[in-house]
Amino acid sequence: MENIDLSHKRHTLAHLLAQAAKELYPKAKLTLGPAIDSGFYYDIDFGGDKLTDEDLPKIEKLMKKNLSSWKEFTHGEVSKEDAINIFDGNEYKKELVEEISERGEKITLYTCGGFTDLCRGGHSENPAKEIKDGSFTLDKIAGAYWRGDEKNPMLTRIYGLAFDTKEELEQYQKMLAEAKERDHRKIGQEMSLFSFSDHVGPGLPLWLPNGAVIIEELEKLAKETEFKAGYKRVRTPHIAKESMYLTSGHLPYYEESMYPSMEYEGGKYYLKAMNCPHHHQIFAAEPRSYRDLPLRLAEYGTCYRHEKSGELFGLMRVRSLQMNDAHIYCTEEQFADEFRAVNDMYLKYFKIFGIEKYVMRFSKHDPKKLGQKYVDEPELWKKTEEMVRNVLVESNIPFVEVEDEAAFYGPKIDVQVWSAIGREFTLATNQVDFAVPKRFDLSYTSSSGKAETPLCIHRAPLGTHERFSGFLIEHYAGKFPLWLSPLQIAIVPVKDTHVEFAKELAKSLEDKYIRVETFTDNESLGKRIHKAKSLNTPYIVVIGDKEIDSGNLTIEKRNGDKVEFSKEEFIKILEDKIINRDPQE
Amino acid sequence: MENIDLSHKRHTLAHLLAQAAKELYPKAKLTLGPAIDSGFYYDIDFGGDKLTDEDLPKIEKLMKKNLSSWKEFTHGEVSKEDAINIFDGNEYKKELVEEISERGEKITLYTCGGFTDLCRGGHSENPAKEIKDGSFTLDKIAGAYWRGDEKNPMLTRIYGLAFDTKEELEQYQKMLAEAKERDHRKIGQEMSLFSFSDHVGPGLPLWLPNGAVIIEELEKLAKETEFKAGYKRVRTPHIAKESMYLTSGHLPYYEESMYPSMEYEGGKYYLKAMNCPHHHQIFAAEPRSYRDLPLRLAEYGTCYRHEKSGELFGLMRVRSLQMNDAHIYCTEEQFADEFRAVNDMYLKYFKIFGIEKYVMRFSKHDPKKLGQKYVDEPELWKKTEEMVRNVLVESNIPFVEVEDEAAFYGPKIDVQVWSAIGREFTLATNQVDFAVPKRFDLSYTSSSGKAETPLCIHRAPLGTHERFSGFLIEHYAGKFPLWLSPLQIAIVPVKDTHVEFAKELAKSLEDKYIRVETFTDNESLGKRIHKAKSLNTPYIVVIGDKEIDSGNLTIEKRNGDKVEFSKEEFIKILEDKIINRDPQE
Repeated sequence: MENIDLSHKRHTLAHLLAQAAKELYPKAKLTLGPAIDSGFYYDIDFGGDKLTDEDLPKIEKLMKKNLSSWKEFTHGEVSKEDAINIFDGNEYKKELVEEISERGEKITLYTCGGFTDLCRGGHSENPAKEIKDGSFTLDKIAGAYWRGDEKNPMLTRIYGLAFDTKEELEQYQKMLAEAKERDHRKIGQEMSLFSFSDHVGPGLPLWLPNGAVIIEELEKLAKETEFKAGYKRVRTPHIAKESMYLTSGHLPYYEESMYPSMEYEGGKYYLKAMNCPHHHQIFAAEPRSYRDLPLRLAEYGTCYRHEKSGELFGLMRVRSLQMNDAHIYCTEEQFADEFRAVNDMYLKYFKIFGIEKYVMRFSKHDPKKLGQKYVDEPELWKKTEEMVRNVLVESNIPFVEVEDEAAFYGPKIDVQVWSAIGREFTLATNQVDFAVPKRFDLSYTSSSGKAETPLCIHRAPLGTHERFSGFLIEHYAGKFPLWLSPLQIAIVPVKDTHVEFAKELAKSLEDKYIRVETFTDNESLGKRIHKAKSLNTPYIVVIGDKEIDSGNLTIEKRNGDKVEFSKEEFIKILEDKIINRDPQE
Repeated sequence: MENIDLSHKRHTLAHLLAQAAKELYPKAKLTLGPAIDSGFYYDIDFGGDKLTDEDLPKIEKLMKKNLSSWKEFTHGEVSKEDAINIFDGNEYKKELVEEISERGEKITLYTCGGFTDLCRGGHSENPAKEIKDGSFTLDKIAGAYWRGDEKNPMLTRIYGLAFDTKEELEQYQKMLAEAKERDHRKIGQEMSLFSFSDHVGPGLPLWLPNGAVIIEELEKLAKETEFKAGYKRVRTPHIAKESMYLTSGHLPYYEESMYPSMEYEGGKYYLKAMNCPHHHQIFAAEPRSYRDLPLRLAEYGTCYRHEKSGELFGLMRVRSLQMNDAHIYCTEEQFADEFRAVNDMYLKYFKIFGIEKYVMRFSKHDPKKLGQKYVDEPELWKKTEEMVRNVLVESNIPFVEVEDEAAFYGPKIDVQVWSAIGREFTLATNQVDFAVPKRFDLSYTSSSGKAETPLCIHRAPLGTHERFSGFLIEHYAGKFPLWLSPLQIAIVPVKDTHVEFAKELAKSLEDKYIRVETFTDNESLGKRIHKAKSLNTPYIVVIGDKEIDSGNLTIEKRNGDKVEFSKEEFIKILEDKIINRDPQE
């Protein structure tokens, strides 16, 4: 997946940026400058100088000028003392040097175009030749604490964008501009989808009626899909006693991500951070036999997690998460079929939402870390990882394998999707769980009468309402398909004499549970049509004499096309499109 | 509603019980003995003597014997000192006497059949004549702390049942026996509806798959009904900051009923005990005009309340409550229509659930307590109480008026219903709210451009999932109508050769979202049919050669009736019954 050349260019550009900054601001203290996903950045302590975005063009200009002399990197190892001398007066570099030395690693310096920096290497062979004209630009300035710790000084982070070609850079910038237009917070406000309240608290979204429509439709989709896939719904409280999370292992390891406890009747209660332990209690509520397996327990459960205030972001990073959760308890023999069925469900959803680009990131264990980072079940790891891989290959799902990133209790799959404008989102995680069912003493009676521990698959194809809705808002730019649209039909009577007919039409649609609004406000026809359009309504029906006389409705689609139908035809078409969740309109 | 004669009889019987207890157990210290709903009780300190249910017949026998001499009550006032002398050695009576005296009230003693007790009066004129043979019985023994305070000594409470006639008593006892058979905790376990877990905590039910079906169906009913009634759905978090509950007035007054706070980021968060403040935040999220009213915000919201462990009882008294909540924000002019529509919704639900007996308890304010117990808005009180009364009269809903029991912010209506076996349940409360919207500064722009505070109607016709499901389990004795049944169709193939046909039939039903299970276990046909019946399945379809050859299905209903249909007819009938929520089967 990763393009090493591009990553080397970006890293090189970070050096180039540092050189230019140092030339323009001699007092600047350089710190660290890595390559990142879309380019690079460098964190700099400018001392008294206060940089703004307006200063970027002159730095960029100097970078471009300097680049012509960047022909080749040279490097060499230095002693700790030499390194500290070279970066004299720069306490950040000194700290880095000390740490490298403490780890017993070599201290290396890289030089190019007359500029030297502390570095581990990984640059372009010939920057002047490889880095194309117009393929990079400085993007923006942000504040960043030294090493991300708010107790440290605040540095200035200069971000750059960099791609292989000018065209790719421009395409990316266009995507960013489009993403800004489609920002879920902006559209969320324009369409009254969600809101926050100081009384409720940060990171805790309130779903306004229009947003609640979307999440209720998503739940309906999940419930229908899961019903047909043999899932059983359950419902569990949002709190549990300390003993639950001690048994599951969330306490004390996960405590930082949990809300603080409530002291109650001499014990502690916690808001639930995950649904799994509650579902395990439902598994344990009755004796289970192999005949009951696979048992698939599903709940759109709400969990609460402590995210730092500074990291909260619209619907994408929140503290309350409504999750399309389910846990599948199965035997080893059933595992492959169950896992395949979960993947099929993903593919089904991708089709419904018009998600064309996706990849599964298959995280495996590291055999060297069995018994430490990973449950010591070498055979189960081998077997399930092989089963997971086979299913992924068979299902023709694009995937990448990642070493040493599994959960401690089994292999993990992160599902990454790209929105219509090409932005990447991590939406959901599937996990195979060998270990936790045992901690809760879950068991079933096998066909030979023995007590066995089930495997557990954790899965949430639609992720959380918060993140998935945030993704969908950008993906559709607020122009949701009919089945998902908060308002499905707008009816606009031309004059007062048409209102009665309009209301009757609205009533007929409402009888079929179609979401309709009649715009009868005391405003001009044009204004009312404009209002209906501003809500991204898929169909607008204007009612005038012609429509009443002919009994035929003229319907304006969101793309401006006009079609004509009788009322009965129109209702039939709507019902079909809604029930089939037509992805097109 | 209240039968004063019966209440006097019950009160008299408490005296009669006290006399008999005292004669049989001379060391007994009498305390208090009121009339209650179905009879009476008396709390007694038996000192060393340990009473059991087996002792009741001899006390009852003595009561009957003594009754013949209970011709007339006499009474007289005594001084505090005399009273204390009379009840010498009884610290409970002494405490009561002191309190009466402190309140400046008269201390009165009532005597009948040679037995004297401290009492305020309210007895039968001629007990021996009025209290009919066999119209009362001693029922059971329970422990009760003196004055309900666990810091006080534990007393023995003897309960008696009493009605006007022997027949009424027997009818009531029959109802009690039937209620025991229909106990929601018993049926809940037999049908795997819900469960509790020590890890989760007391009073926090986990809904197992079969129970989750019921609450999901209730939600579907509510959502469809509310959609057609013009409600908008919202969704809110389960926590809020302290400021929310300080503003709403829940803190500090309601704090005892709330879970303790979570200290977080230097502030306090609380689990929500009510949905209203959250909905008020949604009202406040956008500017509102008179054109937006009435605004009806609905949410099946989960609240958390601190109920004492000793008071928890199955689903009827719990700590997590999923409430069929909605708040209607409206103008004064809109109030009557909105309130009428809420009542119509109740009537619609009563019909669906076959609830034939119900009454609304209309609690009003006391004008003398304006500005203290009640918001000081005399005109609004008068107006809304009159409106409420008018709507109740017009809608032909049976109701009673109760003085001085309103909420502090407006009139209140408790809805009482009777289950199929005649037991009374309080399911829901409607409230009119003048005051809280103002505390949250809620306002809308009136047609004349002024900022006005809306009225708010709180309503929850289906109460909470917990209590309503508990009621329904008893009401239906677990034999839920088709639309509400966890399992709707059981298919039982006679032999292995019939399994394929059975599975195809199951698949056709599942395609229509009908809940079906095929009983293919390795057991005899009889056993499998018995299993299907034990789940109270509305329809059982046995598949044998005959069915496969003829293509006609034989369907056994829950009442034993058998009917025959083609597969297509059967599916059509099921779909109709489910979509129309047929109350009959």
